[in-house]
Amino acid sequence: MSTDPLSKQAFGVCYYPEQWPESRWPTDAKMMREGGIDFVRIGEFAWSTLEPEPGQYQFDWLERAIDVLAAEGLKVILGTPTPTPPKWLVDRLPGMLPVSKEGQVRGFGARRHYCFSSLEYRNECARIVRELAIRFGKNDAIVAWQTDNEYGCHKTVLSYSASALQGFRGWLKSKYGSVDKLNEAWKNVFWSMTYRSFDEVELPVGAVTETNPIHRLEFHRYSSDQVAAFNAVQTEIIREHSPGRAVAHNFMGKFFDFDHYELSKDLDIASWDTYPLGFLSREIGDPELLERYFGIGDPDFGAFHHDLYRTCGQLRNGSPNGRWWVMEQQPYGPINWGNYNPNPHKGAGRLWIWEAFAAGAEVISFFRWRQPHFGQEQMHEGLLLPDGRPNFGYDLCKQVSAELEELQAAPSNNRADVALVFDYESQWMLGYQPHGADVSHFDTVFRYYRALRRTGVNVDVVPATAEAIQERKLVLVPMLMTIDADFASALKYCGAHVLAGPWTGAKTREFAIPPNLAPGELQSLIDIKVRRVETRPKGFPIPIQDGKSFEGWREFLETGHGVDVDQETEDGWPAIVRCGPVTYVAGRLSDVGLDGLIRSRLTEVGVTWHNLPADVRVRENGNTRFVFNYGQQRAEISDLLGENGSQMIEPAGVRYLQI
Amino acid sequence: MSTDPLSKQAFGVCYYPEQWPESRWPTDAKMMREGGIDFVRIGEFAWSTLEPEPGQYQFDWLERAIDVLAAEGLKVILGTPTPTPPKWLVDRLPGMLPVSKEGQVRGFGARRHYCFSSLEYRNECARIVRELAIRFGKNDAIVAWQTDNEYGCHKTVLSYSASALQGFRGWLKSKYGSVDKLNEAWKNVFWSMTYRSFDEVELPVGAVTETNPIHRLEFHRYSSDQVAAFNAVQTEIIREHSPGRAVAHNFMGKFFDFDHYELSKDLDIASWDTYPLGFLSREIGDPELLERYFGIGDPDFGAFHHDLYRTCGQLRNGSPNGRWWVMEQQPYGPINWGNYNPNPHKGAGRLWIWEAFAAGAEVISFFRWRQPHFGQEQMHEGLLLPDGRPNFGYDLCKQVSAELEELQAAPSNNRADVALVFDYESQWMLGYQPHGADVSHFDTVFRYYRALRRTGVNVDVVPATAEAIQERKLVLVPMLMTIDADFASALKYCGAHVLAGPWTGAKTREFAIPPNLAPGELQSLIDIKVRRVETRPKGFPIPIQDGKSFEGWREFLETGHGVDVDQETEDGWPAIVRCGPVTYVAGRLSDVGLDGLIRSRLTEVGVTWHNLPADVRVRENGNTRFVFNYGQQRAEISDLLGENGSQMIEPAGVRYLQI
Amino acid sequence: MSTDPLSKQAFGVCYYPEQWPESRWPTDAKMMREGGIDFVRIGEFAWSTLEPEPGQYQFDWLERAIDVLAAEGLKVILGTPTPTPPKWLVDRLPGMLPVSKEGQVRGFGARRHYCFSSLEYRNECARIVRELAIRFGKNDAIVAWQTDNEYGCHKTVLSYSASALQGFRGWLKSKYGSVDKLNEAWKNVFWSMTYRSFDEVELPVGAVTETNPIHRLEFHRYSSDQVAAFNAVQTEIIREHSPGRAVAHNFMGKFFDFDHYELSKDLDIASWDTYPLGFLSREIGDPELLERYFGIGDPDFGAFHHDLYRTCGQLRNGSPNGRWWVMEQQPYGPINWGNYNPNPHKGAGRLWIWEAFAAGAEVISFFRWRQPHFGQEQMHEGLLLPDGRPNFGYDLCKQVSAELEELQAAPSNNRADVALVFDYESQWMLGYQPHGADVSHFDTVFRYYRALRRTGVNVDVVPATAEAIQERKLVLVPMLMTIDADFASALKYCGAHVLAGPWTGAKTREFAIPPNLAPGELQSLIDIKVRRVETRPKGFPIPIQDGKSFEGWREFLETGHGVDVDQETEDGWPAIVRCGPVTYVAGRLSDVGLDGLIRSRLTEVGVTWHNLPADVRVRENGNTRFVFNYGQQRAEISDLLGENGSQMIEPAGVRYLQI
Repeated sequence: MSTDPLSKQAFGVCYYPEQWPESRWPTDAKMMREGGIDFVRIGEFAWSTLEPEPGQYQFDWLERAIDVLAAEGLKVILGTPTPTPPKWLVDRLPGMLPVSKEGQVRGFGARRHYCFSSLEYRNECARIVRELAIRFGKNDAIVAWQTDNEYGCHKTVLSYSASALQGFRGWLKSKYGSVDKLNEAWKNVFWSMTYRSFDEVELPVGAVTETNPIHRLEFHRYSSDQVAAFNAVQTEIIREHSPGRAVAHNFMGKFFDFDHYELSKDLDIASWDTYPLGFLSREIGDPELLERYFGIGDPDFGAFHHDLYRTCGQLRNGSPNGRWWVMEQQPYGPINWGNYNPNPHKGAGRLWIWEAFAAGAEVISFFRWRQPHFGQEQMHEGLLLPDGRPNFGYDLCKQVSAELEELQAAPSNNRADVALVFDYESQWMLGYQPHGADVSHFDTVFRYYRALRRTGVNVDVVPATAEAIQERKLVLVPMLMTIDADFASALKYCGAHVLAGPWTGAKTREFAIPPNLAPGELQSLIDIKVRRVETRPKGFPIPIQDGKSFEGWREFLETGHGVDVDQETEDGWPAIVRCGPVTYVAGRLSDVGLDGLIRSRLTEVGVTWHNLPADVRVRENGNTRFVFNYGQQRAEISDLLGENGSQMIEPAGVRYLQI
Repeated sequence: MSTDPLSKQAFGVCYYPEQWPESRWPTDAKMMREGGIDFVRIGEFAWSTLEPEPGQYQFDWLERAIDVLAAEGLKVILGTPTPTPPKWLVDRLPGMLPVSKEGQVRGFGARRHYCFSSLEYRNECARIVRELAIRFGKNDAIVAWQTDNEYGCHKTVLSYSASALQGFRGWLKSKYGSVDKLNEAWKNVFWSMTYRSFDEVELPVGAVTETNPIHRLEFHRYSSDQVAAFNAVQTEIIREHSPGRAVAHNFMGKFFDFDHYELSKDLDIASWDTYPLGFLSREIGDPELLERYFGIGDPDFGAFHHDLYRTCGQLRNGSPNGRWWVMEQQPYGPINWGNYNPNPHKGAGRLWIWEAFAAGAEVISFFRWRQPHFGQEQMHEGLLLPDGRPNFGYDLCKQVSAELEELQAAPSNNRADVALVFDYESQWMLGYQPHGADVSHFDTVFRYYRALRRTGVNVDVVPATAEAIQERKLVLVPMLMTIDADFASALKYCGAHVLAGPWTGAKTREFAIPPNLAPGELQSLIDIKVRRVETRPKGFPIPIQDGKSFEGWREFLETGHGVDVDQETEDGWPAIVRCGPVTYVAGRLSDVGLDGLIRSRLTEVGVTWHNLPADVRVRENGNTRFVFNYGQQRAEISDLLGENGSQMIEPAGVRYLQI
Repeated sequence: MSTDPLSKQAFGVCYYPEQWPESRWPTDAKMMREGGIDFVRIGEFAWSTLEPEPGQYQFDWLERAIDVLAAEGLKVILGTPTPTPPKWLVDRLPGMLPVSKEGQVRGFGARRHYCFSSLEYRNECARIVRELAIRFGKNDAIVAWQTDNEYGCHKTVLSYSASALQGFRGWLKSKYGSVDKLNEAWKNVFWSMTYRSFDEVELPVGAVTETNPIHRLEFHRYSSDQVAAFNAVQTEIIREHSPGRAVAHNFMGKFFDFDHYELSKDLDIASWDTYPLGFLSREIGDPELLERYFGIGDPDFGAFHHDLYRTCGQLRNGSPNGRWWVMEQQPYGPINWGNYNPNPHKGAGRLWIWEAFAAGAEVISFFRWRQPHFGQEQMHEGLLLPDGRPNFGYDLCKQVSAELEELQAAPSNNRADVALVFDYESQWMLGYQPHGADVSHFDTVFRYYRALRRTGVNVDVVPATAEAIQERKLVLVPMLMTIDADFASALKYCGAHVLAGPWTGAKTREFAIPPNLAPGELQSLIDIKVRRVETRPKGFPIPIQDGKSFEGWREFLETGHGVDVDQETEDGWPAIVRCGPVTYVAGRLSDVGLDGLIRSRLTEVGVTWHNLPADVRVRENGNTRFVFNYGQQRAEISDLLGENGSQMIEPAGVRYLQI
C-alpha cells in the first residue's frame, strides 16, 4: 500500500451496499469490474447502520461488502460516516446542532446536522472513526479514506450556536491576548463597539444593521479554522491506524466558505464533485450562457475547479506528487437538484470525463452506481437504472475505459507557465463589502480565467504564496484583497510578469484601507495610489479605447515615479498602468479588453497561445493535446490537431493528438 | 326539512347581523327578499359575540336575527364560529395556536389561529357547536350548516406545533405498528435517518436540507387527516342535534393542502368561494392572460373548480343527488385582496353567475351583503354600499333572479362523458419533488382541462377511483403520481379510452420509484418503462411533428409488446404511444399538441365537440346550452345557438338556447 | 449665544475626534477653517469612549477636542451619544433591545440597538445626556446639540418587544379609558377580535393573516409617540443645562416611520441627511430615471425633502424664524451604501449644495471630514482621503465658500404661494391598506411635487393644519386619508384654490370608511361621494381626453349639488370635478394630465410659472433666482436668466441671477 500517485488514470464509483440486498452485492461488483471501474467509495452515510445503538458497533456487514468488492479486484475508499450522525446521537447532544443566521436550530432529518464548533461532536466523530480505522485500517482492499462528505454543504460552515460563540471568544483571546488589542485592531471606537473583555464579544449576527467587517471576517476565519480542525481529528486517527493509505476529502463547486488550501494541507488527495448540468443551471446566472451551453455545461466552470483542486492536491508537505480526483462525477444522465434537470447532449458525458483527465485527474468516480428508488435523491441517475440494469452512463464508462487503455493515459502535475491567484479570504471580504451589487472575488478571477481559457494555455489556479508563483512566466492577481510585505516581495522577485487587477492590496489583514492607500504593499512594485473607487450598474461602461471599457468597477489612480500610463479612460484617468514587469488594471475590463491585455502579455513572456473558435477549448496533458467543443454547432479547428485528418469537431466533441 | 337537492337554482348572500345595529336588520331582510335572495349564511365569525365570557352564552341576538330573516321567508345557513376563537380561549389554551415552518407561533389578531392537531381546541369546538346545535338545530329557518370557514386558508393545514408532533407520532404508530417497518418503508437507511422508536420521529421541518420525501408526504397525509377529523367532530354533533339539515363547507380556489375528496365524504353540500378577478390577479401568473382577461376573469379557472366541487358534492355515501353551491361569489365590483383590484368589465358579474349555474350549482351566494366600513375587509364590495344603499351587485342579483325564473333553471348532476382525474396526493408529491422549477400536478391537469374547455364538451373533474371513471367515454389521467393495482384494473376495464400523461404511475405510495419503473401498475395496460426523465426551462422545446412539441418535461420510454409508437420526437424517442384504448404521452405537450390529441380521441369515442373561437366557452346543463364570451371583443359563434337570431356574442356576454 | 437663525449661509462638517490621534486634531481644525467650514458636529457615536465603564465618565478628551476646534474659531454641535449604547449597558439591560417583526431580538454589534419603548434605556439616556449637558452645556464653543442620530434608521421605530407591548397597552388605556370603547372604535366584532381587557391586546404582529388595520395604525401612532417622547427626555435636559443653544435632530430621506412634524415641535433646527447618489440608487426604482440622472441625482427627491424639512424647522412654537440645515451632505465622491456607488458627475457636488442653499438652508454640513480606514463605513468618502490629504470634496467646499461670500447668501423662510400637504398618518394607512400593489402616499404626493417642480414655482411641503395652509394661493391635497371637520373648515376658508387628489378624506381616524362615504368631511366643500375604487396594474390606463389618463387608481363618483364635471373618463364617469375654488381628481392622473391641471390652476390663482426644459429646475431664494440642470446634456434656458449673458446651462450646472 502506498500514498503515491497512480501511474495511470482510472474510474471509480460511489456505492452504498447498505442500501441494497446483500444478495445483489456480487452482481454489482462483477458489473463494476466489467464496466471498467477500479475504485469504489463506500460508507460515508452509514453511521446508523454501523452503530444502530450507542456503542453497539455492527461492522461485519461492511467487512463482507469490502470482501465482495475485493474479490473482483476493486479497491475501496472508505468514507467516515460523520456527515450523518444518527438520531440517538443528536438526541444525546442537542448542542451539537448548527444554528442559522436567524437563530434557528437546524435539526435532524437530512444530513450535515452538526456544528463544526461542537467539541462534543468532534469527540463522537473521533470515537467512530477510531473504531473504523482499527477494524479496517489495514484491510488490503482499503486504499484510501474519505473524511466526512462535502464539508460545508447546505451552508453549514457558518453556524451561530453557543459552541460557536464560546469557541470564537477563545479563538480571539488566543489571537489577540488582550481585548484592548482587539479593540484597536478592529477600531471598535467607530460606533462605540468597544469591548471590555472577550466575554462581551458576540457573534456578528442579528445586529440592527451590518456589524464591523473585521468582526465578520474574523468569525469567518475562525469558522474556516474549525473545519480544518474537525478534519484533523479524523486524519490523525486514520494515519495512526491505517498507515500507507491516502486521505481524501471531496470538495464542491463554487464553494468558498472555508479555506480549501488550508484544509488541503492535511489531505493526500484533493478531490471534488462535479455536476456540469447542475452547475450550469444553478451557478451560471447569465441566460445567454444557459442557452449556449444547454445540455453540455459551461466550458470553463468545471475546468477552473480542476485547475484549483489540482493545486490543492499538492499542498500537503508541498508535495511535488500532488494527487487530485473527481470524487463524484455527474453520470451521463440528468441529476435531481438543478432548477431544471435536462438530458445531457449527445457526447457531453465523454466530454466531461476527458476534460478532467486532460487536467491530470488520477481517478474519476461516478456518482452513483445505481439510481435509488427511494429517498431524497431518487431522481438522480446512476450508472445503473433503479431496476439494476445498465443505464447509458454504464456503457459510456466502459467505452472510455477502453480509450484510456489505448492512450495509456496517466495523471500529471506539470507546472503551468501561467498562475492565476485565487484567494478565499478575498472572497469573504468582498462578500462583506462588495461596494457594488455584483462584485465578487470569484467572479472577478473567473473573468480572467475565462480569458485565459480562450487562449488555450494551461493554467494553475493558486494561492497567494511565494511557492505558488515560482517558476512562472505570467502571474495574474485579479482582485487579491490583502497583500503582505512577504507576498509583495515574492511577486517582485518571482521573475514573471505580474498582472494585477483592481482592488488588489486594497485592505490590511485587519480589513482596513492601508495607511498609504490601496494597493498597499503592491506599491513596492508599482508606485500608484487608489484615491477613489466607483461602482456602476450594468449599462454604464467607462470607455477606454479600441472598443475596450471598464464595466462596473473603476478606480481613480495617482501615479508616481516610473509608472507609465498604457491607456487612459475617455475622461482622462489612467486605465492600465505599468512599471516594468508589473501591470495594474484600474477597473473591471470588458472581455474584449481582457483578451487583448492577456494575449499581449502572453506574447511578451513567450507563452504560445491559440486564437480559438468561440466554444472550443484546449488542454495539454503530458504530450497529449485535447480539444473540446462546448458549442451546439460543429467547429473548425485547423492547426490544433496537426495534419491529423479532419479539422472539424462535433458539438460536445473531444479530439486528441500526441504532440 | 330535508337534505335533498333543490329543485330550482337560487341566490344567497353572506350576512353578519352582529356587525350592524339590530334596528337595521328588518330593512336588510326586506331588501334581500326584494333583491331575489332566498338563502342567507350567518354566524361563522361570531364566537366572541356568542360567548363573550367563558361559558356565558349569548344566543338570543342570533335567534332574533334568524327570526327577522325568517319573517321575510329567507332560509338560513348557520356557520359554526370555529374559525375565530375568542382571545380568552386562546389565552387559556396557548398550545392551540398553529406554528409556522420557521417555528413561529402564529397568534391571535386575525382569524384561523388554531392548529388542526390541537385536541384541546377540538373539545372547545365541540362544546360551542353542541350548544348552538341544541339551541338552533331544529329551528325551522335553518336549512343547512356550514362548518367553520375555508379550512386551511392562510396556510394553516401544515402546522408544526407540539400537538402536531405528538399527533404525527401516534398516527405513524397506528399506521406502521413497528418502527422497523417505518424505517424500511421510508428507506431511512439512505442518510442514516433510521429511528429506534416512534418517539424519535421529528416533523419534517427545520432540517439542514430537504428531508425524506416520504417523511414529508406522510406528514401531509397526517395533516390532511386532521382537517377531516376536525370537521367530523362538528358534523357528528350537528347531525345528532339538527336532523334533516344539510352540512356544507366552503372550499377555496387553487387550494390543495388537504384532500377535499376525503373531507367531502362527510358533507351534504360541497361549496366553494369564487373571486374571478382576485384569482386572475393572484393565481394566473401569465401576464398575457392577465391582459387578455382583464376585468373578466380566466375562462377556465373558475370552471375547473365548478367541475371539481360538483364531484365533491357527490361523495357522501356515493350520493347520486350530490349537491354543490357557490358559497361566496365575488359581487359585481372590486374586492380587496388582489394584487390589483379592478372594476369588473360590463357584463362580467352576470357571466360569472351563469357559468356557475350552467355548471349545475344549486345556489350562488354573494359575499357579502353590505360592504363594511371597518376591519380588514373594508375595501371589499358587497351588494350594498357601506352606507346601506344598493350597489351595482344588488341590481344584478335582481336582474338575474328574473332570468332564473323565466328559464325555470334547475341544478343538475348529469354525468359527463369525459372525466379528468385530479389527485391531491399527486399535488403534494410533485410539490416535494417537482424535478423542475415549474412542474405541478394542478398545472398539468389544468392544461388538459383548458384543452377540453376549448372543445366545449362537459367535463367532470374526479378522483382516482373506480366509481369515478365508470360510464365515461374518455378518461384523462394527466399526471397521477401513484396508481395501485385496483385503479389500474379499473382503468383497464372501465370501457373508456384512457389518455395518460407523463409521470402517471411514477411512484409507489411510499414515494418510491416502482420496482419495474414508471408507469408502475399502468404497465398492466400498456407495456412501457420510463428510463429517464428530463426537465427543461422555457424556450427549450423538444419538437415532435406538425408543429407539436414537448415543453419542459420529457420521458425516455422503452416500449414492449403491443405498443405502437404514434409519434416520435425529432431526436427519435417515442413521444405518443398507444396500446388499444390506452394512450400514453411521454412529455408535456404544447397546447397545439394537446388540442390535436384530445380532439382525435373525442372523435374516436364519439363525443361531439366544437371548434370554438379563442375566448368562447360552452356548457350544457340539462337541455340548455350556454355560450360565454370571456374576450374583450365581440365574437362570432355561428351554429352554437342554432337559428336563434344573432350569431354574435358581446365581450363578457352570456347567451343560451334550449337544445 | 442664541437660538436665532443665522444671518448667512455656511458650511459644516461631521467629525469624529475619538477615531483619530489627538496629535492630528489641530491639523484637522486648521484645515477645516481654511476650507471654509464654520460648524463641526461631534460626539454622537462616542458613548463607549465617554463612559468606558459604568459610571466612569471620561469627558476630558472631548473637552480638549472642543478646545482645539474652538481655537480655530469653529463652532460645535454636540451630538448625544444615545444611538450607540455600549456593550456593558446592553448586557445590563437586555430588555432594551428592539425586537423584529419575526420576533428576533436585534442585538449589539452595529448601532441603534435599542427599543424606543424601553423606559430603562430612556433613564440611561437621561443620565448620560445630563452629565454631558452639565459639563459642556455652557461651553462657549457649543452652539447647538444634536439629539441621537437618524431616529428610526435601520427600521427601528416599530419594535415588538415586551416593553412595547406593555407601553402600547398603557397608551391604549389612556386613550380609550374602557376596553369596550376600544372594541367599538376598532369594530373588533368583525372577526371575533373583541377584548375583555387591555391586558388581552397583543401587538399587531405574528397573526395568521393581516390584523385589523386600526390595530396596526394605533400601534404605529403609539410607536411614533415613543420617538417623540424619547427625544423629549433629552431636549428637556439640554434646555435646562445648556441655555441658549439650539437643539437639532438629523432626519433622513424617504423615511416616514414616525411623525416628523410632531417631533419637530420640540426642535429648534430641523435637519436632514442627503445622499443624492445613494437615494438615486436605492429610493428611485424607475430604471429610466436611474439612467437619466446617473451621477447627478434625482432633480426632485432631495428638493422635496428640503421643502419638507424647512417646514419642520418652523414648527417649534410656530416659529416664524424656523431653522433648517443639511446635517449630512454626500461629499463630492462616492458613498458606501448604494446598490452601486458611482462617481459624481462633474459639477454634481456643487449642484447639490446650491439646491439646498437655494431652498434656504442655514448650514450644509458634509458627512464626513475624513474617510475612515476602518469599520463599516470605510468605503464612504470624506472631504479628506483616508491618508489625511484633501480629497475633491474639500476643494469644492472651499470654492463654494467663496461663492457664498460673494453672493452674501442668507437663509430664508419665505412662505411659498403653493402648499403641498404631506401627511405621515396617510403614509402609514396606505401602507396597511394600499388596495393596489404600487400605491403609497409619498409616491402620490411626490407625483404632484414633481409636476410643481416642472413649473419652477417655489413650494412648501406642509402638514394638514390650518396654520400651514394660510396665506397660500394654491393648496394641493393629493391623498390625505383623513380629514376632520376642523381641517375641512380650514380648507374651505383659507382663500386658496384647493386641489384634492383621490382618496382624500377616505377614512376616519378609526381607519373606517366615513358614514357618508369618501371624501368624508371634504363633502362640506364639494358634494361628491366615492362609490367604488378600482386599482389596476401598469399598462391598463383609463383614458380621459387630450391624451390624459388615470393610471392605476380610479374612483367612481356620485356628484351632487353645485358640482361641475370638468372632464369625464372615456367610459363616462366623472374624472375631474369642481365646485368653485375646489377641484377633486378622481384618479391617479398621468404626468401629462397633472401638468395641465396644475398649470391651469396656477394661472387661475395668479402664480407665475415657467415652462422648463425637461431636466432644468428653478428656485428663488430672497431675490436670487437659481437655475439647475440635472440632465446629461447642455440645456437652453432662455428668459430665466434675463439678459445675463449665455442662455445655456451645462450638465449638472448651476446658474444664478439677482432678480
